[in-house]
Amino acid sequence: MNMNENARIEAFSDGVFAIAITLLILELKVPPHESIHSVADLWKGLVLLWPSYFAFLLSFGIILVSWVNHHYLFNVLDKSSRPFLYANGFLLLTITFMPFPTALLAEYIGTDYVKPAIAFYCFGGVVNSLGWNLLLYTVFKPKLLLHSSISTDHIDKVWNSTKIGFIVYMTATAIAFWLPIVALTINLLLWIVWITLSITEKAE
Amino acid sequence: MNMNENARIEAFSDGVFAIAITLLILELKVPPHESIHSVADLWKGLVLLWPSYFAFLLSFGIILVSWVNHHYLFNVLDKSSRPFLYANGFLLLTITFMPFPTALLAEYIGTDYVKPAIAFYCFGGVVNSLGWNLLLYTVFKPKLLLHSSISTDHIDKVWNSTKIGFIVYMTATAIAFWLPIVALTINLLLWIVWITLSITEKAE
Amino acid sequence: MNMNENARIEAFSDGVFAIAITLLILELKVPPHESIHSVADLWKGLVLLWPSYFAFLLSFGIILVSWVNHHYLFNVLDKSSRPFLYANGFLLLTITFMPFPTALLAEYIGTDYVKPAIAFYCFGGVVNSLGWNLLLYTVFKPKLLLHSSISTDHIDKVWNSTKIGFIVYMTATAIAFWLPIVALTINLLLWIVWITLSITEKAE
Amino acid sequence: MNMNENARIEAFSDGVFAIAITLLILELKVPPHESIHSVADLWKGLVLLWPSYFAFLLSFGIILVSWVNHHYLFNVLDKSSRPFLYANGFLLLTITFMPFPTALLAEYIGTDYVKPAIAFYCFGGVVNSLGWNLLLYTVFKPKLLLHSSISTDHIDKVWNSTKIGFIVYMTATAIAFWLPIVALTINLLLWIVWITLSITEKAE
Repeated sequence: MNMNENARIEAFSDGVFAIAITLLILELKVPPHESIHSVADLWKGLVLLWPSYFAFLLSFGIILVSWVNHHYLFNVLDKSSRPFLYANGFLLLTITFMPFPTALLAEYIGTDYVKPAIAFYCFGGVVNSLGWNLLLYTVFKPKLLLHSSISTDHIDKVWNSTKIGFIVYMTATAIAFWLPIVALTINLLLWIVWITLSITEKAE
Repeated sequence: MNMNENARIEAFSDGVFAIAITLLILELKVPPHESIHSVADLWKGLVLLWPSYFAFLLSFGIILVSWVNHHYLFNVLDKSSRPFLYANGFLLLTITFMPFPTALLAEYIGTDYVKPAIAFYCFGGVVNSLGWNLLLYTVFKPKLLLHSSISTDHIDKVWNSTKIGFIVYMTATAIAFWLPIVALTINLLLWIVWITLSITEKAE
Repeated sequence: MNMNENARIEAFSDGVFAIAITLLILELKVPPHESIHSVADLWKGLVLLWPSYFAFLLSFGIILVSWVNHHYLFNVLDKSSRPFLYANGFLLLTITFMPFPTALLAEYIGTDYVKPAIAFYCFGGVVNSLGWNLLLYTVFKPKLLLHSSISTDHIDKVWNSTKIGFIVYMTATAIAFWLPIVALTINLLLWIVWITLSITEKAE
Repeated sequence: MNMNENARIEAFSDGVFAIAITLLILELKVPPHESIHSVADLWKGLVLLWPSYFAFLLSFGIILVSWVNHHYLFNVLDKSSRPFLYANGFLLLTITFMPFPTALLAEYIGTDYVKPAIAFYCFGGVVNSLGWNLLLYTVFKPKLLLHSSISTDHIDKVWNSTKIGFIVYMTATAIAFWLPIVALTINLLLWIVWITLSITEKAE
């Protein structure tokens, strides 16, 4: 068990993040030739794909932010444990799953049946938050995995924001049953806030 | 031939594991728009995907456990050989193959034709076990690849559990012809037992 | 923040580049069995796929050149920052997106509706150039990320060629509305010039 | 330009190899539910997929052998150059392309139209050999990239076998127009011979 240990977990995780983020594009389908009868038709077909562009961008942003956070977490660890390994596996499961709710959102966001799609999408966020909480739990137990130079305060702060994320996603899921667009906006704001905060954040 | 040697085999293997585990999601198909006429229809459509969710989770778990084991095996090696390289390639073949029996299981588990799907799925486990046995064989022959500080007893123990895995999968495949659900349950239990054992295991 | 920091960003980026470049092949569809009634039909079917071969080769070339440039940029950096991380994420977004305009080009290049396809493809180049400009901006601000032995002149030169790339792609996009084939030729020439220049370039 | 330089080219190449080898499985399609009316039908459906299993195994073997060779080549290099980088890019292009002739082979091997499919598949081997020859050329020119402890004789031997491979693939392509099965058998034998030779080879 040494630094190399964590290096390989990172490499495997990076692979999963990189593939999940790249597979999102497969949901974007070219307007089928049969339905296009003029240049204007093709332009219109490309514009009508907006739900797919939107879902692609949103999920890309979420996976990217997750990767950045994962990356900073591993920066402060120098040990590993089996529970940590499986908690990381569960987190990767929730990332791997992302292309499905993304495709669901893209298919139904412009229709009358948008509620289940958005509720399902937000629920994906709930499970992802759960994964983060589980992972942070295993950083402390059964043994402390932090680099000795890092204070546990630092991680407590990260963990608190993860708990807030969990509550926000739970709320968004509940709201989606009545006001789906509001729920989706919460989702969107959440990662804009996250990126803005982290860019303006002082040190690194 | 040095540590870097094994590092690159690990990197390639990690790539294959990461891609195989992420491709599983492509089998989950969004309920097609044409078949949905109300919000309730879409909820129902999402619930009816349970065979796909189940197959996704089961195969994700199996590939994850395989990766964890692969990872621990490489931790105790510091040499490589051509036979080892090709045995590892064969093991990766059985991992790469996983999305196919997974899709087969998802398609047929809720139908009257479930027997071939489950027998095929269990047989995938047989071939995977075979891959593991072959790989462990090449750890010892034609030359010992173990790090000098590691006793061969340690690997013998791993190998024994791999042999048990092989027998269990063979049995499950045979059972699948009569009692497919029992065979599938054995599969499911196998990896739950594996994760539980390894998490509760003392040292690291 | 250390060399390892950048190493992980590179590894993740490499993963995304590698996957995006490999997914391009999924757009190449085998001529369907139903439409083939003789050996000659199959030969003809393979020849008629030329738009797909062309789009595959063009996009493969573009992503490869992008990867080479990315690779050389990281060679001269030894620090990282959050803005750099997100600018890199945005660049990867434009790479990940490539399979979509590629498929669009393959579908419509041999038809009367080619203008939107080529304009869209060129516009992808605009956004990609924008990503490069943004990334190079964050190399200088908010803090300088260059290795201390590298003069900023070196990067200024790279940045200038990126700005030229941006202008060329903007022009090509505009031209595509009137003379689509000219626009596409500009695209094609751009990367042939790039590879030729960099191969004949003196030092490394 | 240092060891790290080559390390990143290897990492990117490994990514492409790993993805191309894993994407092969996407060509294996589960027998569609509509065409299955009994347990026997599903068994038959699984058996009738033999062309797909065969094509998958053959291409998996070819990509694996390519990766092993790539891996051993990089073991003896410690420098890089732009021409080498682009020659490696071209080789990766031929690897990335593999899923297409594989799908073509799977679709037509059991039909009357098998000649174009096998000729095309063998021609893929020609282009791949060309890529190898190009890559080995750039190992020597414009500057020698070999580790100083490695004699050029060693690489000459590798290069000779690559030249033989090129001739064999050219011959197989020509034969495919008259005796497709013979051409395919040559292909199959080529990599069985390769693996057998390299496993029985003395040193490492």
